Amino acid sequence: MFKKIKSTLAQKLPLFQLRFDEYEIENDDRPFTATVFESRDASNVIAVTSSSEIIMVKQFRYGIEEYTLELPGGLVDEGETHMQAAIRELEEETGYTGTDWEFFTKIAQQPVFIDSYIHTFYCKNAKLEKIKKMDHGEHTEVVLISTTDLKKMLMEDSFIHPHAYSALAKFFLHLEFEY
Amino acid sequence: MFKKIKSTLAQKLPLFQLRFDEYEIENDDRPFTATVFESRDASNVIAVTSSSEIIMVKQFRYGIEEYTLELPGGLVDEGETHMQAAIRELEEETGYTGTDWEFFTKIAQQPVFIDSYIHTFYCKNAKLEKIKKMDHGEHTEVVLISTTDLKKMLMEDSFIHPHAYSALAKFFLHLEFEY
Repeated sequence: MFKKIKSTLAQKLPLFQLRFDEYEIENDDRPFTATVFESRDASNVIAVTSSSEIIMVKQFRYGIEEYTLELPGGLVDEGETHMQAAIRELEEETGYTGTDWEFFTKIAQQPVFIDSYIHTFYCKNAKLEKIKKMDHGEHTEVVLISTTDLKKMLMEDSFIHPHAYSALAKFFLHLEFEY
Repeated sequence: MFKKIKSTLAQKLPLFQLRFDEYEIENDDRPFTATVFESRDASNVIAVTSSSEIIMVKQFRYGIEEYTLELPGGLVDEGETHMQAAIRELEEETGYTGTDWEFFTKIAQQPVFIDSYIHTFYCKNAKLEKIKKMDHGEHTEVVLISTTDLKKMLMEDSFIHPHAYSALAKFFLHLEFEY
């Protein structure tokens, strides 16, 4: 029903490669030009300590000019798997490492105009072992929150990062079904 | 800790106004330039019929070149409140209207580099009353899903729209606490 007939690369922007895709659409007499921002996938992690606390990071976000509470995570580097990126980001942003990793879920970054996905991993028995190593412009504060408190916080409007929110909410929906 | 010292408007892109914000950061010797995509807020709605079905829309999304299952919604127009946009979008995308509306929650679109938010409204007793009216390039299929089935679907990886996901997951977390 949607047939891509032409794809044109436009400007290279910070964070993105802009692209215009032209579509023929069934039952629509005019072609439609879609704007797409090409970008790299990201990974984040629900890392749980042996005391059933989830490792969160508080971080200033330039888009909304506010601090958000998020899962540790970041962009997947070239040559890296999604899981390797999650392991690296957990260590860099929090100093925690863990031995037991599994894929949990993925979600689109913003399917309307961005082509990338965020993959979420689950890491049990996370331990504080290293020193944090931040990127330029990045300053995270590590916050450990018990699973009980975090579930309550998901009811509040202060929790505003959509990808951290979806992953954690799914985690709690699963816990509820499985236990 | 983060002090904005300069803000410069750059290109006007489709959907966005690009902006560069320069920051002085405490304990960081170099200023940091953040890329911000200015955009309009959006609204969506969890609309429930008298038979306890939630009104969803299946829609082709150009960013990921796939169909997604979403809440009805769209951009807030100039001069419109967030709730008016939700009422209008429900009617345009699905033909449903409802009389009983309330604000439910909001979430950032992508706080890292976008300045806007998505507001979610809750509408009880939605009824099919009008004919759908689509924007150019937009073709939605209305799908009614029982709350029981939708909660199960939130466990699956096929549900990939982050803002629809967060709003619906929060809705079910609330239901679980309140009833």
